[in-house]
Amino acid sequence: MTQVYFDHNATTAVDDAVLEAMLPYFRESYGNASSGHSLGLAARRAVNLAREQVAQAVGVKPAQVIFTSGGSEANNLFIRGVAESLKPAAVVISAIEHPCIRRPAEELARKRSEQWQLHQLAVDASGEINMAEVATLLAGVKPVMVSAMLANNETGVIQAVAPIADVARAHGAWMHTDAVQAFGKIPVDFRELGVHAMTLSAHKIYGPKGAAALIIDPRLPIKPLIYGGGQEEGLRSGTENVPAIVGFGAACELAVSRVEALAAHTGALREHLEQGLLAMGATVFGQGAARLPNTCYFALPGIEGDTLVVRLDKAGFAVASGAACSSATPGKSHVLEAMHVTPVLARCAVRVSFGAGNTIAEVDAFLATVQRVVDQLKSMSVVLGA
Amino acid sequence: MTQVYFDHNATTAVDDAVLEAMLPYFRESYGNASSGHSLGLAARRAVNLAREQVAQAVGVKPAQVIFTSGGSEANNLFIRGVAESLKPAAVVISAIEHPCIRRPAEELARKRSEQWQLHQLAVDASGEINMAEVATLLAGVKPVMVSAMLANNETGVIQAVAPIADVARAHGAWMHTDAVQAFGKIPVDFRELGVHAMTLSAHKIYGPKGAAALIIDPRLPIKPLIYGGGQEEGLRSGTENVPAIVGFGAACELAVSRVEALAAHTGALREHLEQGLLAMGATVFGQGAARLPNTCYFALPGIEGDTLVVRLDKAGFAVASGAACSSATPGKSHVLEAMHVTPVLARCAVRVSFGAGNTIAEVDAFLATVQRVVDQLKSMSVVLGA
Ligand SMILES: Cc1ncc(COP(=O)(O)O)c(C=O)c1O
Ligand SMILES: Cc1ncc(COP(=O)(O)O)c(C=O)c1O
Repeated sequence: MTQVYFDHNATTAVDDAVLEAMLPYFRESYGNASSGHSLGLAARRAVNLAREQVAQAVGVKPAQVIFTSGGSEANNLFIRGVAESLKPAAVVISAIEHPCIRRPAEELARKRSEQWQLHQLAVDASGEINMAEVATLLAGVKPVMVSAMLANNETGVIQAVAPIADVARAHGAWMHTDAVQAFGKIPVDFRELGVHAMTLSAHKIYGPKGAAALIIDPRLPIKPLIYGGGQEEGLRSGTENVPAIVGFGAACELAVSRVEALAAHTGALREHLEQGLLAMGATVFGQGAARLPNTCYFALPGIEGDTLVVRLDKAGFAVASGAACSSATPGKSHVLEAMHVTPVLARCAVRVSFGAGNTIAEVDAFLATVQRVVDQLKSMSVVLGA
Repeated sequence: MTQVYFDHNATTAVDDAVLEAMLPYFRESYGNASSGHSLGLAARRAVNLAREQVAQAVGVKPAQVIFTSGGSEANNLFIRGVAESLKPAAVVISAIEHPCIRRPAEELARKRSEQWQLHQLAVDASGEINMAEVATLLAGVKPVMVSAMLANNETGVIQAVAPIADVARAHGAWMHTDAVQAFGKIPVDFRELGVHAMTLSAHKIYGPKGAAALIIDPRLPIKPLIYGGGQEEGLRSGTENVPAIVGFGAACELAVSRVEALAAHTGALREHLEQGLLAMGATVFGQGAARLPNTCYFALPGIEGDTLVVRLDKAGFAVASGAACSSATPGKSHVLEAMHVTPVLARCAVRVSFGAGNTIAEVDAFLATVQRVVDQLKSMSVVLGA
């Protein structure tokens, strides 16, 4: 049985053409990009081409691209790298950031030797950052750094980053957006967002694990997270992961070329899915908000998310439970908590995230399976609160 | 013209069997190892198998292996991660550490808000850490952290890590060794070395770029460099680079299975090379010391290293100049400086590092080419100091 994969926000398969582009760099052009000989120069050229591809995809210059090993590293590089360049002050993040923004920001605020204060922007029940609060909070705490994600990984809700960036800039703060989930699903332009830094990751856009980038405004004060040989203009040392970087570049080209088509395709699947789920009595989180076209985060009241995920997996469908969306050690969803979803309903959360290869037939089969599993669970009285 | 590759200390081609092991994880078993569904569990199993392979290769338990994106990250994780767990005090490193130990250690000592002091262990003219100084320096400064590499990347000189670790432990210091260059070339056993932490990297042992490990004693106090979803027991967050980790595991098995054969093979090539070079009047750095069998770091007085490397590259041989051995931005070699090699001779340094596929015929061709290039340069009077 082949698994139907509805978990593209967790990771994606590497696209055929992307893997094809990577393959020569494992055994043929395997040089170290810092080596001075021909094999090294070939690797350097490949890295530079990828840098151009990534830059072009979000409308920046190649020199603004700092390659890292992943989105988590890039987010940590922003938080810790900018913090180390500034005098301790206030930092503002949204309440729904991925743990790889939230945790390093919490760590900053925890250090007794320094004096960072962490403030969080609340979200509405719709999953959108509350814009009224943005103005008052930023005016009140005068942050030097602000980070707000472009689209949330659980709900898919798209955030008003450009207006937030306007406020942040007006207060002289350095503004970052985590665009890991948005990129490839909706058009993303660095300048239009008005940010000073942005995180992208390859493995969410049909590229390989092991490559990502922090895109920076050249004026951003930032120190490295990883010191050493001085690669990436001194901002990220370590032998470049050439095959992964090449794959990231190729994946960016692919992403840009099909972003509208992919949005239309997955959007149609999502529309169909949600009609079916709503008919079963599901709650769709963030339903009223602008969302990534591929993401549906729902709950069937009384049906525990973890249980449903396991049953669906056995039936051949790969989806994510809310508890496991953004952490290796499942707990409750801080995103749903921030949206004031009741703990009882939050336990029922399941995320479906569509990708390029999914079909309407798969969605139909999925809906039928969900109905069957729900009926089984109800007949077994393992329904929550029953 | 295919290039003869004599730069295996910079990086290696991925072994055929290693790439074979990796391939299924790009497009088939592409799941996120933190996902709860079957595809995620398959990825998790693959990561765990690799963890066992890495652990077994250096005689530790799988739980002691923290996967990182590269040797540079692992070294930074040790220096910064342990420092953040301790009260600022003295840290001791050797004078010949790779920049990815030296630079983060210097950064620690530079921070005004903290009070770290950095001390360096001198090396002898042979390239070996001066053991007499180890005892006196450590007794004097009472370090809480010590890092000494197992083999130097430029000279290949093997360091007396076990005796240094004995002294470090006697003073209650946490002891680390960077075994990136030693591993796969000589047998490496964590417990025999008596260290609390050790760095390994895949791309130096015919594995892929993008995977490495910090091996730790469970008692080591350490904090993450990258915070987030809590992968790697919370010590290294970020979606696991499953294909690279799988390749790292496979490369470790390969390394252990052939370490003696590879040492004998490359040792014979090196012996032959050095006879030829010495006959041409070359100086071999660290000649009298125990060295990695594959590494020859030499200078032909009067012949600039960078020039020789470029000429040899044109003639089909990939080697490294001393100035470019460990940094993306070439400068002078801090290793030769620590060995008190004169700046004039240091500028002539060239590193040959052999690997599994090299042959005696290649070495003969190389020697003939070096002789020809030297004759040309001498006739052109571009000899240094001429
Ligand atoms: C919004 C967001 N940011 C950052 C990341 C971190 O990316 P990675 O796990 O690849 O380091 C993820 C992926 O889970 C994400 O969804
Ligand atoms: C001794 C030593 N340590 C650490 C490293 C760093 O490894 P990487 O560049 O793969 O991060 C290297 C590789 O150049 C090395 O030779």
